[in-house]
Amino acid sequence: MLTSRSILRALGAAAAVVASTQASAQVTSARPVTVGQLPPATYKPEFGTMWTFDAPPLDYWRRTYNFAPDQKWLDHVRLASVRLPNCSASFVSAHGLVMTNHHCGRDCTASSSPADSNYIETGFAAGTLADEKKCAGLYVDRLQSIQNVTDRVRGAITGSTPAEQTAQRNAVITQIQDECKQQTQLNCQVVTLYQGGIYSLYRYRRFNDIRLVMAPEGDIAFFGGDPDNFTYPRYDLDLTLLRVYENGQPYSPTDYLKWSQAGAGENELVFVVGNPGSTGRLNTLSQMAFLRDVGYPASLAAYKRSLAIYDQLARTDTSAARRYQNDVFGIANSQKAVTGYRAGLLDTLSMAKKAAFEREFRARIAADPKLQAQYGGTWDAIAAAQRELATFNPQLRYYGFGGGSNLLQLAAGLVRVASESGKPDAERLAQYRGAGLTNIRNSISGPVPIDTAFERLAIAAQLRAAQGELPANDPFLAAALAGKTPDARAAELVRGTKIGDQSFRQSLIQGGAAAIASSTDPMIVFARAVDPLSRAQLARANALNATIATNSEKIGQALFAAYGTALPPDATFTLRISDGVVKGFPSNGTIAPYKTTFYGLYERSAAFDDKDPFKLPKRWVDRKGNLDLSTPYDFVSTNDIIGGNSGSPVINKNAEVVGLVFDSNIEGVSNRFIFSTDVGRTVSVHSRGITEALRKMYDGKRIADELQGR
Amino acid sequence: MLTSRSILRALGAAAAVVASTQASAQVTSARPVTVGQLPPATYKPEFGTMWTFDAPPLDYWRRTYNFAPDQKWLDHVRLASVRLPNCSASFVSAHGLVMTNHHCGRDCTASSSPADSNYIETGFAAGTLADEKKCAGLYVDRLQSIQNVTDRVRGAITGSTPAEQTAQRNAVITQIQDECKQQTQLNCQVVTLYQGGIYSLYRYRRFNDIRLVMAPEGDIAFFGGDPDNFTYPRYDLDLTLLRVYENGQPYSPTDYLKWSQAGAGENELVFVVGNPGSTGRLNTLSQMAFLRDVGYPASLAAYKRSLAIYDQLARTDTSAARRYQNDVFGIANSQKAVTGYRAGLLDTLSMAKKAAFEREFRARIAADPKLQAQYGGTWDAIAAAQRELATFNPQLRYYGFGGGSNLLQLAAGLVRVASESGKPDAERLAQYRGAGLTNIRNSISGPVPIDTAFERLAIAAQLRAAQGELPANDPFLAAALAGKTPDARAAELVRGTKIGDQSFRQSLIQGGAAAIASSTDPMIVFARAVDPLSRAQLARANALNATIATNSEKIGQALFAAYGTALPPDATFTLRISDGVVKGFPSNGTIAPYKTTFYGLYERSAAFDDKDPFKLPKRWVDRKGNLDLSTPYDFVSTNDIIGGNSGSPVINKNAEVVGLVFDSNIEGVSNRFIFSTDVGRTVSVHSRGITEALRKMYDGKRIADELQGR
Repeated sequence: MLTSRSILRALGAAAAVVASTQASAQVTSARPVTVGQLPPATYKPEFGTMWTFDAPPLDYWRRTYNFAPDQKWLDHVRLASVRLPNCSASFVSAHGLVMTNHHCGRDCTASSSPADSNYIETGFAAGTLADEKKCAGLYVDRLQSIQNVTDRVRGAITGSTPAEQTAQRNAVITQIQDECKQQTQLNCQVVTLYQGGIYSLYRYRRFNDIRLVMAPEGDIAFFGGDPDNFTYPRYDLDLTLLRVYENGQPYSPTDYLKWSQAGAGENELVFVVGNPGSTGRLNTLSQMAFLRDVGYPASLAAYKRSLAIYDQLARTDTSAARRYQNDVFGIANSQKAVTGYRAGLLDTLSMAKKAAFEREFRARIAADPKLQAQYGGTWDAIAAAQRELATFNPQLRYYGFGGGSNLLQLAAGLVRVASESGKPDAERLAQYRGAGLTNIRNSISGPVPIDTAFERLAIAAQLRAAQGELPANDPFLAAALAGKTPDARAAELVRGTKIGDQSFRQSLIQGGAAAIASSTDPMIVFARAVDPLSRAQLARANALNATIATNSEKIGQALFAAYGTALPPDATFTLRISDGVVKGFPSNGTIAPYKTTFYGLYERSAAFDDKDPFKLPKRWVDRKGNLDLSTPYDFVSTNDIIGGNSGSPVINKNAEVVGLVFDSNIEGVSNRFIFSTDVGRTVSVHSRGITEALRKMYDGKRIADELQGR
Repeated sequence: MLTSRSILRALGAAAAVVASTQASAQVTSARPVTVGQLPPATYKPEFGTMWTFDAPPLDYWRRTYNFAPDQKWLDHVRLASVRLPNCSASFVSAHGLVMTNHHCGRDCTASSSPADSNYIETGFAAGTLADEKKCAGLYVDRLQSIQNVTDRVRGAITGSTPAEQTAQRNAVITQIQDECKQQTQLNCQVVTLYQGGIYSLYRYRRFNDIRLVMAPEGDIAFFGGDPDNFTYPRYDLDLTLLRVYENGQPYSPTDYLKWSQAGAGENELVFVVGNPGSTGRLNTLSQMAFLRDVGYPASLAAYKRSLAIYDQLARTDTSAARRYQNDVFGIANSQKAVTGYRAGLLDTLSMAKKAAFEREFRARIAADPKLQAQYGGTWDAIAAAQRELATFNPQLRYYGFGGGSNLLQLAAGLVRVASESGKPDAERLAQYRGAGLTNIRNSISGPVPIDTAFERLAIAAQLRAAQGELPANDPFLAAALAGKTPDARAAELVRGTKIGDQSFRQSLIQGGAAAIASSTDPMIVFARAVDPLSRAQLARANALNATIATNSEKIGQALFAAYGTALPPDATFTLRISDGVVKGFPSNGTIAPYKTTFYGLYERSAAFDDKDPFKLPKRWVDRKGNLDLSTPYDFVSTNDIIGGNSGSPVINKNAEVVGLVFDSNIEGVSNRFIFSTDVGRTVSVHSRGITEALRKMYDGKRIADELQGR
């Protein structure tokens, strides 16, 4: 299948959302404490290696690799790195070339294609600067500096209730960010690390003129498609080269990564620099158990329903398969990822390791009366809240207008815009606060594509699932089904509503609360009936999540108190540097090699008789003879990555590019909660594979010379 | 590593021993019964597909594949197949070419090498008939006919005790075999099928003049060595071509397998024809539990001890690694196989399937009062005996002069030859009955290499393990250790004994019981002290094993009564035909393709930087350009094989060669007890890979033309 995918991309966006949601949900009520009489903290490998640039573990690196970079090296590497909206990337030439994954540049590659062609199918390599294609709407951010603002954030929080604390915290963060922007003209973000153990101000310079330089065919970028996704050995050229322009000219960055001559070698120390989206290594055992037993099973069931809908559509409409392939891939990818996450939680050995750590952690806290008084109760408080959340999880999910229907979302939005508009900001639903209300109003008033066949199936599937999971007398079922079967009710709603019509929606928005209250549109009637039920469950969940957030922040502070920066913080889709080693692993009863070569690409295609998704692009068939087939192509290393790291450069001790991260093997997916280098691996394109392909396949001498500084 | 290995070879020999041991241990006491009022029996896939040529499952094949061969096809295929001492093979030309595995022809390949070279390292292809090399001592057997002799065997068994029955059975089998040999001049063997459900007389024609025609380098035959052993994808040319001569001229067989033009294709029906050594699918749950919990763990511990000894030797003596590589490989291979067998037994899903079958089987028996009376108690009787065997398993093992020491074996042999010589045949230890006594006496009198460094370590390891497993007051420890530490005692024994000296052994043999009784040689003293302990445990175990054998035979009869030939019998290292389909399988998070190509060979070598055991022979580097790299090389199918099947031809519906079996994937190893085609696969060399290699790599036009009938 030829679509964007991989955990690294699919979860990048989600990760960003999670990070910002966490930030707004977290409150602080305690001062940091010193370690006191606790024994010295040591690094715990299960916490992984996603280090922030302001706390590089120099002693640990020196001890482990006999190498520790100086501040100049660290600054250089940080300034050579950039962040795309959902991915990671890096400057790789003096003239602003930016390297990232094919799936990260996919939107640009598709949208900059000429009318009669599609670069996703044909590949693209600009012959000259003038041929480089503008990527509409794309930008990259470079992290200019980091400042610890923990004291200022904590100092502003004087309230006694969680609600007051949250408001004060949000206010001071907004204030810090606004001041920063005014002073520096940079994009400023306060990042919550260690769940509130540290607050850091990250200042980014944004570049808005980005152009497409080179992208291979999707069939070679994603060779092996869905089956090979999250696996290794791999044979993918998952590459896009972009260029940053400034004032219409290629930008000349002060810092960019040079290209390694040799590329990644076996057992070599390498660093991955990028923006991992979200990990859960600070989660308590009870939080992990909730995900394993409640959260993830619900997600997996929802993915299954969605895939069944697309499958049904594809069977009745041959164009549907093509139209929905991106959605299907995205869901299948999430399904594979979540199955992997859950596998980690189902692994008794990993969970035993986690339990052992939690015992040690609690013992360290209990050993200090002051720490015990402050933090001793957090684990049990979280466990109690998780238990209660589990009791109404189906209600929370089904009352929430989910299941993929745009009509349901529009109806809910119309009803809520009407009611929330009349309230003071602080009393609104979270999404409707600040700029949220305006944004949502604009989205609803704008064009929204409605696929009625899909809508009918999605609403019916959601109602059917609700019927199966909710008690028969649940008020939602009465309101939502109105005595009909799920299929009949879905058909009736989709047939009867006019909210698919943009001007109808605009008239309802303009009519305000009165127009909504008097509307007889069946979707509006539906949303009006369900909205109060949904609000009640949301309020209950919000309260419990606030308890969890408060206590999670305490856990983060306790961790910081007990271990300091000896343990890296959870991922926050901000810049990290992870150490690792280029290394094969035991797999499939034998050994997976540290690298693959172009021979393997042709082997895997030939072994499957060149059938999709192992079909080679024509260019790769015609020009095979040009290639040195023994050139390294992809490789694996023990670096610590997760969604958001897509497009991260892999660099050597000299800060030279030796590879380009694009995936994790399936064994690495369960590293989300408990990190291990036993068999989990980061999968990257080898730097030599990139230049060999550019020169021999894409007539890309201009670009390869630029990368290699020739 | 470059040695013979793989389950298929390593277990071939063991399988033959097991088969003949079973035959002599089994007795019969019940007549076969008809199915009576039981519902019709249906095929159970978990019993696999190792069909005998006199009971081909034509209906099942027709139903499953819409294909059923006629008798002429079956006779032709049977007569084109031959058996090597430990392997399977087939006639593949009108001039007596025989195809088998490299590891099956290894002894001939090594021994026919010239003094200054080694064909295992260099490979060999005879340019002309005159260049073909005589294989000293090698023979092949062709199965001429099969006759059911069940009635005659049963009719001869009139005694009431198991001992009488065993003797009568052995006698009638010997009589049938001798008569057959006299009448036909063929080698005749009575084969016990269904643990006594059927006795069949197999008549073989033996060919004694076998010559080496072609064998590739060991490095390409066993490419990937120990790591890739039992795995797939694979890239091995595990081939030897021999030729049968008669009266100094190439033999012209009436039946030989023609060569397929296309070779194995995806999803194609294929048959494997060969001699599987030993399966345990008729084992009861309690027998499987014994192997899982007692037998296999003990074997695995013994392998581990042996490997540790070789490892220690290699560390002090650089030539030892080379000298012992075959032994090490053999043990490592058995270790991998037994780990696989045990994995099957540890798999709760498989065991649940087995338990479900046993419930159904017992219910079928219980449904018929006559069958219930005859067979209803067998399962519990076996379970009780297995339980008791478990109680003294360590004693049985450590008293038995095991652990790999030749000196211990020689000492035990000398002591026992002296005592057994004076007894009537029937009262001797089993191995000393019939020709056994003379054979053992001759072996002891002949030359036996003694490696004193190995002896010391092996005896010490055995004594140390005994100390760890036996109670402190065990009489063996007192006799064996004589108050010393294991290391000191082993050193003392090896230093003090003279039985390493052939003439000393001969003098003891000639001196008879008196010489043994008065000997002060420390090894003889040791063996004299341990022998009575060993005999007592052996007697106890023999009685329990006789109970198990008696009841196992009943299980076999009951199975035959309840299911008839709907289920194939367990493997007996005799000719079987197994149906299957050429098919990839889910593996490593993705799909393993149905075939590999030569691209993959070069990929795997390049990915490991051409390091051992992924190093290519020089010829394969130099002549790479000659090859069509996309030629199919190895492939997988769902046929049912096990040790002994090495060298079996894979044929299509036209009885043409499409491949050459050489291994099973690791997932297939657990098929020993419970067969499944979910992920277990037979691994074969593709017929097109063979001819491509012959023509392009080995200047083998003469041979390839002969195979392809050109």
